[in-house]
Amino acid sequence: MRFELTRDYLEALKSSIQQEDKKLIKELTANLHAVDIADIFDEIDIEEARLVYIHLDKELASDVLVELEEDVRERFLSYLSGEEIATVFINNMDSDDAADIIGELPEKKQDEVLSHIKDVEQAGDIVDLLSYHEDTAGGLMAKELIAVNENLNVTACLEEIRKQAEEVNEIFFVYVTDDDSMLTGILPLKQLLISNGKSKIANICDKGVISVKTDADSEEVAQVMEKYDLVALPVVDSIGRLKGRITIDDVVDVIKEEAEKDYQMISGISSDVEASDSVIQLTRARIPWLLIGLAGGVFGAMIIGIFENDLGKFPEIALFIPLIAAMAGNVGIQSSSIIVQGLANNSLGLDSTSQKLFKELSVALLNGIICSGILFLFNMFFLDSFALTLTVSTSLIAVIIFASLFGTFVPLALERFKIDPALATGPFITTTNDVIGMFIYFGIGKLFFGF
Amino acid sequence: MRFELTRDYLEALKSSIQQEDKKLIKELTANLHAVDIADIFDEIDIEEARLVYIHLDKELASDVLVELEEDVRERFLSYLSGEEIATVFINNMDSDDAADIIGELPEKKQDEVLSHIKDVEQAGDIVDLLSYHEDTAGGLMAKELIAVNENLNVTACLEEIRKQAEEVNEIFFVYVTDDDSMLTGILPLKQLLISNGKSKIANICDKGVISVKTDADSEEVAQVMEKYDLVALPVVDSIGRLKGRITIDDVVDVIKEEAEKDYQMISGISSDVEASDSVIQLTRARIPWLLIGLAGGVFGAMIIGIFENDLGKFPEIALFIPLIAAMAGNVGIQSSSIIVQGLANNSLGLDSTSQKLFKELSVALLNGIICSGILFLFNMFFLDSFALTLTVSTSLIAVIIFASLFGTFVPLALERFKIDPALATGPFITTTNDVIGMFIYFGIGKLFFGF
Repeated sequence: MRFELTRDYLEALKSSIQQEDKKLIKELTANLHAVDIADIFDEIDIEEARLVYIHLDKELASDVLVELEEDVRERFLSYLSGEEIATVFINNMDSDDAADIIGELPEKKQDEVLSHIKDVEQAGDIVDLLSYHEDTAGGLMAKELIAVNENLNVTACLEEIRKQAEEVNEIFFVYVTDDDSMLTGILPLKQLLISNGKSKIANICDKGVISVKTDADSEEVAQVMEKYDLVALPVVDSIGRLKGRITIDDVVDVIKEEAEKDYQMISGISSDVEASDSVIQLTRARIPWLLIGLAGGVFGAMIIGIFENDLGKFPEIALFIPLIAAMAGNVGIQSSSIIVQGLANNSLGLDSTSQKLFKELSVALLNGIICSGILFLFNMFFLDSFALTLTVSTSLIAVIIFASLFGTFVPLALERFKIDPALATGPFITTTNDVIGMFIYFGIGKLFFGF
Repeated sequence: MRFELTRDYLEALKSSIQQEDKKLIKELTANLHAVDIADIFDEIDIEEARLVYIHLDKELASDVLVELEEDVRERFLSYLSGEEIATVFINNMDSDDAADIIGELPEKKQDEVLSHIKDVEQAGDIVDLLSYHEDTAGGLMAKELIAVNENLNVTACLEEIRKQAEEVNEIFFVYVTDDDSMLTGILPLKQLLISNGKSKIANICDKGVISVKTDADSEEVAQVMEKYDLVALPVVDSIGRLKGRITIDDVVDVIKEEAEKDYQMISGISSDVEASDSVIQLTRARIPWLLIGLAGGVFGAMIIGIFENDLGKFPEIALFIPLIAAMAGNVGIQSSSIIVQGLANNSLGLDSTSQKLFKELSVALLNGIICSGILFLFNMFFLDSFALTLTVSTSLIAVIIFASLFGTFVPLALERFKIDPALATGPFITTTNDVIGMFIYFGIGKLFFGF
């Protein structure tokens, strides 16, 4: 029932393409879902993909186009004229997908495509959607929906739905509006099926409908749909008129992207790459954070350089440099990631910043005392130098406290200045904490060693 | 339309509870969604929550119970008898929620609750669901669905839906089965509304229905629903009989939890905590990885200890310890996280392990040459010791290559042994790379300094 892409399958397909065996190509791609065909196109050359593509029926071909990776789609479309794009593909698409795809084209080609869309209403919908920023509810929504006037009765409403249904692919809810197109309620199809034909819609619909404004950002949309377990969410303009609807599948993508962005940030990868991308793309995504780490390392070297003479006298102090640096980094990452995840999930609670910092201080003290205590006992037995034992344990507590507070404070501060708080995770926080950790360690060392 | 939980609101509610002002409590909680009430209960004492709870109507109270955090729910239910739980709450719930909640109870109480469910069919459904592991499709699915025989016509089908609809909260699709209860198709409600009354269901339904088996694990369910943009997914047994359906809102939770688990792993947090949890919970979640970091630091100290005498002669070698350690850690995290994310998204492509390692080697070489080259030029100008310049740049390349390959290999190996590959991110990989980085650095130092 479900297709699995294997190397054997790919080889069979590629050889059928090389031999231009149309029958075999059709056989191999028969009954495949658009998503699976898009996956196949990711693995073969664009020229090979085109030879498969021309054998697909138009509706499936449009769906495949929607599912392609952006860079593959771009190359595909560059082969086609604006007229072909409009008549073959855009006609078969929902307004949101059509707007997304047209929005990716160069501006001149956008106009060309739009001018060739025959259905004026569809063209108007697409132009409307193109005016919203892509990261807002307006940019996510589709125009296709079923809306009925609240004054209709059930029988008239069913008639109206049949009329409107032609243009809408999936119907989960019927939206209810008043005479001014204001959204006043939502009607599950179930309610419609089990209600008496003469019931007035206003009396059987659910008035507590949750909606978002067109300018709500996509993260807010995702939070609302997730929190209230919604499958579809109506979008209204600033005075409450129904403008479109967002379905959960588009929002699942937003949720995944948000999570992936945060994950990439914390792992020190600067752009959206996958293991299957090219060596150059992967290197480009990784080098920025490595250079920051490098700069941090040079700063660290400078700080240690201040104490080079003392190191000559007490070389044992170098032994715990990696321990202090690692602990500073780990604690900083823990603290900042808890805040970043809390901000992303809206689960930080109602505490003020100072209450949060105080709580973090308590956690840091506890962690610090446990780690320092263990290390102190260990070093008492295995180290000859009591000065070093004292230096390491004291600076470990100090470093854990500093790194915790710093890791808590920075993402909260970034959020306040409307900068992505996830910037405060990953190599940035580790590097800073490393450098400051060295300063604390050698500073405290100076005290106990008396250099 | 949407409720926002503020400190002012909480204070007003708390004072109304203290004064036992029932009217005000009702006023403050009127028109709230179950999710919002559950959020409020997270912020107030359990005794206060109970006083609010008794004023809610039964259906809303059941919804709130479903939305509560597990530990709050547990305490709530411990106040109630099995009979109360069954008659007041379970009756108002979908089978999947009911099974989840009953599954959390102590075994004796489970039997007590089950024995008090009056509707035998419902009790049977719940017992069936309890038999599946919670992380499988069977554990996620609900029994409530609309299924019609493929031999019916549209009019008879609509009649059948009206009959079945009583017990099902939301209807998005009608599932089509043959005489043996085998799932043969799916029918969008839209199709039903626009079709002729005499059409046979078998002829208008969509036969290419995607389904999962009851024992499919929840990650697979999430991947299928996400990939094919599904709102609901039918679940069948091993021979294809329709057993239940999973809706996307339950799967969004699975997707979020997976992403959060990976994020916590990479940030060195060992269990599911939030910023709003207690100091003890937060410390407990953070200390395990810190102890591993501590042990790694002690190993690092031992390795450097081997070279303590040389350090006395050439103290400048200590300067770049943090740089080498940090770069080893950062590179390792980058490599392992790309693999972990690729495994989670099923986007690793079709390359074999050796091809992946070879690609990673290329990326590492490029990154290593760039970073080492920059550092070499910098050190040529600012360092007096050419031996140190050579040591640092050579060992940096070596460390980057080792950490990359190690970071790529470990998660792939874990995956092969069915261990969560995300274990290979975060403090584990950083710590190991730190220690081995020190070994490489001092080893190469021995070569160039001739100690």
